Amino acid sequence: MPLIDNITKPTLLIDEAKCRRNIRFMAEKAKKHGLIFRPHFKTHQNEEIALWFREEGVKRICVSSGSMAGKFASASWHHILIAFPFNIRETEQIQGLANHCNLSVLIESVETAEFLMQNLEYSCNFYIKIDTGYHRTGVDAGNIHYIRNILDTTQGHPKLKFEGFLVHAGNTYGAKSTDEIAAIHFDSIEKLKKLKEVFIGEYPELIISTGDTPSCSIMEDFRGIDEIRPGNFVFYDVMQAELGACSYDDLAVAVACPVVAKHRERNEMVIQGGAVHLSKEFITREDGQPNYGLLAEFEGNKWSNPLENTYLSKLSQEHGIIKTTDAIFNRIKIGQLLAVLPIHSCLTVDAMRAKYLVV
Amino acid sequence: MPLIDNITKPTLLIDEAKCRRNIRFMAEKAKKHGLIFRPHFKTHQNEEIALWFREEGVKRICVSSGSMAGKFASASWHHILIAFPFNIRETEQIQGLANHCNLSVLIESVETAEFLMQNLEYSCNFYIKIDTGYHRTGVDAGNIHYIRNILDTTQGHPKLKFEGFLVHAGNTYGAKSTDEIAAIHFDSIEKLKKLKEVFIGEYPELIISTGDTPSCSIMEDFRGIDEIRPGNFVFYDVMQAELGACSYDDLAVAVACPVVAKHRERNEMVIQGGAVHLSKEFITREDGQPNYGLLAEFEGNKWSNPLENTYLSKLSQEHGIIKTTDAIFNRIKIGQLLAVLPIHSCLTVDAMRAKYLVV
Repeated sequence: MPLIDNITKPTLLIDEAKCRRNIRFMAEKAKKHGLIFRPHFKTHQNEEIALWFREEGVKRICVSSGSMAGKFASASWHHILIAFPFNIRETEQIQGLANHCNLSVLIESVETAEFLMQNLEYSCNFYIKIDTGYHRTGVDAGNIHYIRNILDTTQGHPKLKFEGFLVHAGNTYGAKSTDEIAAIHFDSIEKLKKLKEVFIGEYPELIISTGDTPSCSIMEDFRGIDEIRPGNFVFYDVMQAELGACSYDDLAVAVACPVVAKHRERNEMVIQGGAVHLSKEFITREDGQPNYGLLAEFEGNKWSNPLENTYLSKLSQEHGIIKTTDAIFNRIKIGQLLAVLPIHSCLTVDAMRAKYLVV
Repeated sequence: MPLIDNITKPTLLIDEAKCRRNIRFMAEKAKKHGLIFRPHFKTHQNEEIALWFREEGVKRICVSSGSMAGKFASASWHHILIAFPFNIRETEQIQGLANHCNLSVLIESVETAEFLMQNLEYSCNFYIKIDTGYHRTGVDAGNIHYIRNILDTTQGHPKLKFEGFLVHAGNTYGAKSTDEIAAIHFDSIEKLKKLKEVFIGEYPELIISTGDTPSCSIMEDFRGIDEIRPGNFVFYDVMQAELGACSYDDLAVAVACPVVAKHRERNEMVIQGGAVHLSKEFITREDGQPNYGLLAEFEGNKWSNPLENTYLSKLSQEHGIIKTTDAIFNRIKIGQLLAVLPIHSCLTVDAMRAKYLVV
């Protein structure tokens, strides 16, 4: 009997073969281009999947919070970067980590640098967070004056060692084509190369770290970059497939959800599977309406490619509303499990508490 | 030293006094109108807060899943309604509950009714889920033929007892004014009263159950209704305040988030506090842009009213981007805690795993 037959409620499924294939693809790509591969573990947040990375030779990782750093430090990861603007309220917590592993943090202000210098008991590396156009956070790549201010502040400090410049070119997520992703990628690299030229004399070991999943998946030219830090690629998702960063066959994650009601008059079905399971992330359809997820059917424990003209049109706390075609409506039965292919796997996996079944 | 001074990362805060005041307000309103008060516990999901309801005389509750029913049954709640279209894959799980408490489920199809009749070992009550215009799920209130089909199917069954008609007029959440909420409320009641008239002869004890938070908060005329089931009112949120269902002073929940970066060139600040803490629920601002939350400052352990012209304009997994004014930008410091007033408290509380500090 397929494993999924025992599922009674929304359940996160990981396709181990696809997930391992995604990890291997990126590890080999990094190797081929001579890049340090420091994957972001915020997408899976899971110690078992972390071991699949280790089997591909991964030793350095990223996380997005002090708690996540603590979790992976306990699971014997020794090179951890908290890739989030350093939260000075967590200084005490990271002291313990800095004492037990090779910890790196992200600095983007003189205030944070000064606070760390005054309060740090153990050695810690830092990157300066650079903004090359995404405008979420970081120091503008052209603001050499302020970047120098931070470096002058930390210069010669015995416990705070400068590692390099770090960027997340998250503007690739909003790209309309792979050409646009390439343009963002090269523009970002150009800005980082200029920055490196300014400071390489004083800091000959400084590195350039980048690595949004779209660029890392699509590009074949990484000249000027020393390290990549993609995260989402471990599972990919509908957003990445729509961007062209992967194919639907690469999606390594789905949420199995039971159909609980059908409404023929509007070709809608209701699943147990809502915002608390999937997150409310959506992409906008061509008709201007939100799409909260695509749907697939099960064949044994594996899910199919997305069902045509079928998507989650509304989500409330636990209800998901599927719009579909006559033919699919007629085929699906109340009590049947459908697989939701998430729009943004990082958020879905977190909503599901990172607990899953391997299929 | 205020409790909040020890907070290092995004932390859910519950203002006990406001929360108890909200519970008392709704309990007294139900009493005044002679209504059964069966609050929805999906908003708080918490055993301690459940006791605050018990202190106001609440004995009957709603939950939105079998797991949540199990949790509250273990915490000595004896009258539990799973207010979600019954998921037939959970039949075995609810058998145990039906044996230990007075359990009610929601039916909206002949298939589900037949499945339950064939598989139920212990007695269980059911409501029929009715759609009076929200069009999420339920049988259309005018579809007497299909409603009779369900009742003919279950008639005389020894273990499945019909309790009444249930509606969630969730279309009030999209209302543009309190007048529109009132119009939806009365339209829904009219449809339910007609339904009751058709079936009251055969089922003299049948009740009408309704109860979205906007209607229950605003209305003073509940004639025709026997039971209300609001949930969100326990905390309220920005969406309810904007609808006019509460004032900002009634908000009993906030997420304390540390400021980690400031960007003067665009009057933006970055907090640790993203989609995994708040959910990606938003309301649309007058300028057409999304608002993912309002911000308040702390005065001791309590939060202020919302800061003017200050809101969360973007959320990623752990980053929240605040847009604000010059004056507020200048006042707030890196490392300071701000209170995020959530757009939709049900989703935020779930995202925060229903773990909180009481202030």
